[in-house]
Formats: sequence, structure tokens, C-alpha cells
Amino acid sequence: MSLFRPDIERIAGYMPGEQPQDTGWIKLNTNENPYPPSPAVVEAIRTAAGGRLNIYPDPLGKRFCKAAANLFNLEPDWFLPANGSDENLTILMRSFVDPHEFVAYPYPSYILYETLADIQGAKCRRLMLNADYSINHATARPIVEQTKLVFVPNPNSPTGNRWSQDDLLKLVPPKGVLVLDEAYGDFADVPHRGEILKSELGRQIVVTRSFSKSYSLAGLRFGFAIAHPDMIRGMQKVKDSYNCDTLSLAGATAALEDQATMQENARKIRATRTRMTSALRELGFTVVDSQANFVWCTRPNGGHKEIYEALNARKILIRYMKFPGVTWAANEFLDGLRISVGTDDEINGLLTALRQIV
Amino acid sequence: MSLFRPDIERIAGYMPGEQPQDTGWIKLNTNENPYPPSPAVVEAIRTAAGGRLNIYPDPLGKRFCKAAANLFNLEPDWFLPANGSDENLTILMRSFVDPHEFVAYPYPSYILYETLADIQGAKCRRLMLNADYSINHATARPIVEQTKLVFVPNPNSPTGNRWSQDDLLKLVPPKGVLVLDEAYGDFADVPHRGEILKSELGRQIVVTRSFSKSYSLAGLRFGFAIAHPDMIRGMQKVKDSYNCDTLSLAGATAALEDQATMQENARKIRATRTRMTSALRELGFTVVDSQANFVWCTRPNGGHKEIYEALNARKILIRYMKFPGVTWAANEFLDGLRISVGTDDEINGLLTALRQIV
Repeated sequence: MSLFRPDIERIAGYMPGEQPQDTGWIKLNTNENPYPPSPAVVEAIRTAAGGRLNIYPDPLGKRFCKAAANLFNLEPDWFLPANGSDENLTILMRSFVDPHEFVAYPYPSYILYETLADIQGAKCRRLMLNADYSINHATARPIVEQTKLVFVPNPNSPTGNRWSQDDLLKLVPPKGVLVLDEAYGDFADVPHRGEILKSELGRQIVVTRSFSKSYSLAGLRFGFAIAHPDMIRGMQKVKDSYNCDTLSLAGATAALEDQATMQENARKIRATRTRMTSALRELGFTVVDSQANFVWCTRPNGGHKEIYEALNARKILIRYMKFPGVTWAANEFLDGLRISVGTDDEINGLLTALRQIV
Repeated sequence: MSLFRPDIERIAGYMPGEQPQDTGWIKLNTNENPYPPSPAVVEAIRTAAGGRLNIYPDPLGKRFCKAAANLFNLEPDWFLPANGSDENLTILMRSFVDPHEFVAYPYPSYILYETLADIQGAKCRRLMLNADYSINHATARPIVEQTKLVFVPNPNSPTGNRWSQDDLLKLVPPKGVLVLDEAYGDFADVPHRGEILKSELGRQIVVTRSFSKSYSLAGLRFGFAIAHPDMIRGMQKVKDSYNCDTLSLAGATAALEDQATMQENARKIRATRTRMTSALRELGFTVVDSQANFVWCTRPNGGHKEIYEALNARKILIRYMKFPGVTWAANEFLDGLRISVGTDDEINGLLTALRQIV
């Protein structure tokens, strides 16, 4: 007899990318930023570590919210800090979706949303993208209309493309919420700062942001949601009382206040991304133009898993991903390689290895 | 039209104790440890802050689990680190309780369990304690038999008393799980180390521990669960992928490995607790013998809220708590004061103020 809920018993659980704890890897599999965070972050954490760690943190992270309000030109009550963007995605699911209700997300995309739906006992439907990864509004709309929560990563993962505001507004459910997962938003050629929240449908939209990617702080676990204060207040009821710790609040606030470091790192990543995209194409890969810190590569004749394994044997870690049920793919099965944009040296290492392999 | 789930719309949300962000308070309201954490913790955090914060943490916190296994004389796969004990309580609720199923907890006790049940859409039932805060097994058992999850804080909050292993084993639901919330376990005169998990019913028991109290790390947000590996594996499916950050994993591991500092702080707190209990009794309070780092005080003629407010005006913060529906209390309404055990100086300040007030 299992004591677990049947929903939990049934699922395998989400499998995050490998995190080898030894060194010597060129690690291009989980879209980490290859550059260190702002020195101000390290300093802020060290100061906070010598402060009153015996005392609970501010449950609402008000100082962080003030800094974010400043950056996004909104009021502090539009922000909800969280233990990583992951926590906000979980909070959103628990705030808005009752068991047996529907959630939806573009496909192929970030399959974590399916796991989150499974855990909540909700039903997850896929909005099948066109073969060029544009949104098929004709097939999406009837699904969206029955949906409580639509998750859209923008830029999308693993494909790296970005949809327009017009596209996104059409995905707002009439009786639900559109979650714009902007984990990679800072890497877009023209980054955005929550402008869509000021649209007419803005009260039904929640934007989530992460410090793991653009701010080089995957180790810190910090993210935040931006939404109308009525939405934030409801979500606050669902979160754990002290969901963010003293150190991450201090570090994230310092990171946000040093925009120059983040922007400079993002600029370097965009430059490497351009170079890497051309080089991969020269090697015979089909590469989607990326607005994120990774690229999605396929080959006309496949062999993706073998390339992943050959790189792995050389201690170069990328992500092999497969998406069953993609209607326009051969045998309805799409697979490919998602490669994070590393430093120039790391990408040179990758390209050298690929030249030997393919 | 609210977009939120009806369960969320209905609830007020849990209200944690006040966390004044200014200084000058004698803060005895949220059971923080008045002593700083081990210097090894600060050092470990500072080192980790200068390390690879741009890389994700180990999703399972294996190094911490190894240290905990060593301390508890178990294998590492018996442990689940979490973003505070709060997160483990949420994970437990989501792992084992479907909406409309029952959870139960002793009453009066930690009302957060009711909020967690509300969020999950579960039904929460109270196991009414006797007037001496012992467990009334005759009334508890029929409820426990219908229950999926029984939460028992041991020592209990706000009363500070501790139940025996015999008492606890009778609260294991035949088709469910007993959660022993040992946030205050290290302050007991005879601390325990998960011995109950080795009993015959051990596979249906989960022990949760916190670093907020005995390890002086409320600001770090770190806790862990101990249970049979089958239980831990299921709970891992429910947690966020990277629920613990690099800094808290480093700090908590260092804290665990310096038992001497924690034990010395716990010893001081026990000594202050004894002195404080006597002094409060001399002032006419009824004080429960406490096995935790707080004491529960009532006065035969009430006036608790007025005392709380008079202390507050002197910048001394304690917790005024009320419990409607306590069958044996006058008008079925119990209230009282929960006072954390501070430093000797802080408690002297409290006692001086109380002598003026009562």
C-alpha cells in the first residue's frame, strides 16, 4: 500500500539537467551564465553573513521589492520575491488551478510545467507550435479558452525564439491567467521590462523573472514575479511565510542595483551566441535564431543523441532533448541539442570537439 | 470575478509573528535563538559566496545529507533538505493529502497546519488536548483513524510540553503518516535523534527538523526531513528541483558539524528557561514546564492582551495567542502569552517591565 497521493505515485518527477559536482567539465547543459556575478553581490552576502542570521528575514523582502520597483517603474507591491523562479511557478499553480482544471503551454517547450500540473492534479494540454516555432493561434485558442493558467516561456526553451506581444495577448485565457516566464528575458536583443502588464489584459498576466541566468546567480535560488497588487496579495497567501532568506535577499538586491555588470555579461553572451550560431550552421546544424543564452540545434539526418554522448565522453556537457508527439516531425518525434552559450573559450572547445565528431 | 482558487480566495493566509526591521527591540516573539550561529557557519557562507554562485547547487544536497547521516546514525538517503522546515511541511501536505482528505493536529498547537490544509483543499481536524496539555487518546483515536496526515510538534508550541514516544506511536494513522515536527527538539532536556523512526511503525513517520531555532539560523531558511528512503524518494518528486541554495547548504553543513556551539547555546537557553519560569511564577503567571526555547504563560484572571500591549509599548515583543474552541477553557476560549527564551539580559529586561505592569 502506498501512502502517497495517486498523482504522486504515478509520476516520475521532473529530472533537472545533470549537475556534476566535480570540476573539469565544459558545462553547457543548464543555461547557467559563464561569468561571475557582480562583486557587489559577493560583498552584500558576506556582510549579511556577519549580520543577524539568527533572526528571521523580512517575510515580504520589502527592500528587494523597492529596488525592483525602481528598475521596472512600478510600485513595490507589484513584486513577489521567491526561492527561485521555480517557487513562483509552483505558487502560481497552487493559487489558480484546482485539481482537474486545465493548464496549457506551448510545445515543444519547458516540460517542467507538465510536472507541476501533475503534482497539482491538474490536466495539462499542449499548444502545438508550428514547424517554425511560431504559435498556431487557430489550434491554440480553443484550448486557451478552457484553461485556467497558460505558461509561456518567452524567449522559449529549448528553441530560443521569442514571440511578439500580439502573440502573447492572444494567449490570455478569458477566465484565467497568462504566466510569462521570462527567465531568459534579459538576453533578448531588445529586453523588456513588464510593459505588457500595463496593457488592457495586464491584470490577467503574471511575469516571472529569475536571477539564475542573466544575473549569474543559479546558486542563490532567487526569482520574482511581477503582477497587479491584487494578484500578488493572493499569491502571498500561498507562499511559505519566510520563503526567501537573508542572504539571497541581500545578494539579489545588490545584483539588481548593479545593472551594468549584468548588461555587460548579457552583451558578451549575445556576441558569443551570434558567432556560435554561424559556426554551428557551418558544421551542418540547423540552428534557430536565439534570443536566449542557449541555441537549439538539429541535423537533417538526426544522430543527436550520439553527438551528445560523444561530447560527454570529452567532458563537454550539453542537453539532449526529445519531444514525442510533435505532429509535424517525422514519426511525430522531435529531438535535438540545446547548447548553453558559454565563454568564448568554452564555445571554442565545443566547436573543436564537434569538428572531430560530425 | 476572482481568478484565484476558491480555497485561496476564502482564506486569510497565515500571519507570521512580527519581524520589525528596525533595531532596539527585545524580540521574544518568534522563538529565535538569541545567540549567534557557529563562526564556522559564517566562514563557510563567505567561502561559498566567493565560489561558483553562477552554477546550480546540488539538487539533493548530498554533502549535507552525508553530515546529517553521520550525526543521526542513518544512511544519507534518509534525509531531505529543504528551504526551511516550512517547505518540508508543504511538501508533506502535497505528497500525501488529496483535496477533501483529512489532516489532524493537536489543539492548541501550531495553527500553520490549518493554513497548509486550507491551501491544499484538505480538511483539518483538531485533536483536543486535555487541560494539562496531555493527549486525550480516547477522542483522538477515532479522528486519527480517518486521517491521512497527523502533524505533531514535539515539543509542542505554544505550550512547550513534550509527549512521550508511547503517546506519539498511538497517533500514527493506520493508513497515513505521522509528521513529528521537531523544530524545538534540541532544547529538550533529553534530546532525541530520530530513534522513533526505527520503531515498528517507523515507515509511517516523518521527522522534520529546523535550523532556525537551535542552530541560530532563522535567517538562512534551512530544515530537513528524516524518514525511510521510500518516503524521501516520493517527497523528492514534489519539491522544486533546486530547493536549497549553495549558501544555505554550505552554512547548514558547517552548523551541523559544529555540535559543540549548538549544544552550548541550547544549554544556556535551558538554564535561562528554568530561571525565567520561576520568576514568572513568582509574578503570578501559570507557566507550563517547557522543553522548548519559549514558555507559555497564562494568568488566572486573564488580561493577557493588555500585558502584551504594555510590553510592546516598551519595545519588548512577545506573542499574544488566542485559541477559540478549546472545550475546557472558560467560554471555550483560551488565550495567553508565548515568550521566547532570550539572553539573560533580555529576560531581565522583560522581568523588570513585567514587575511594573502586573
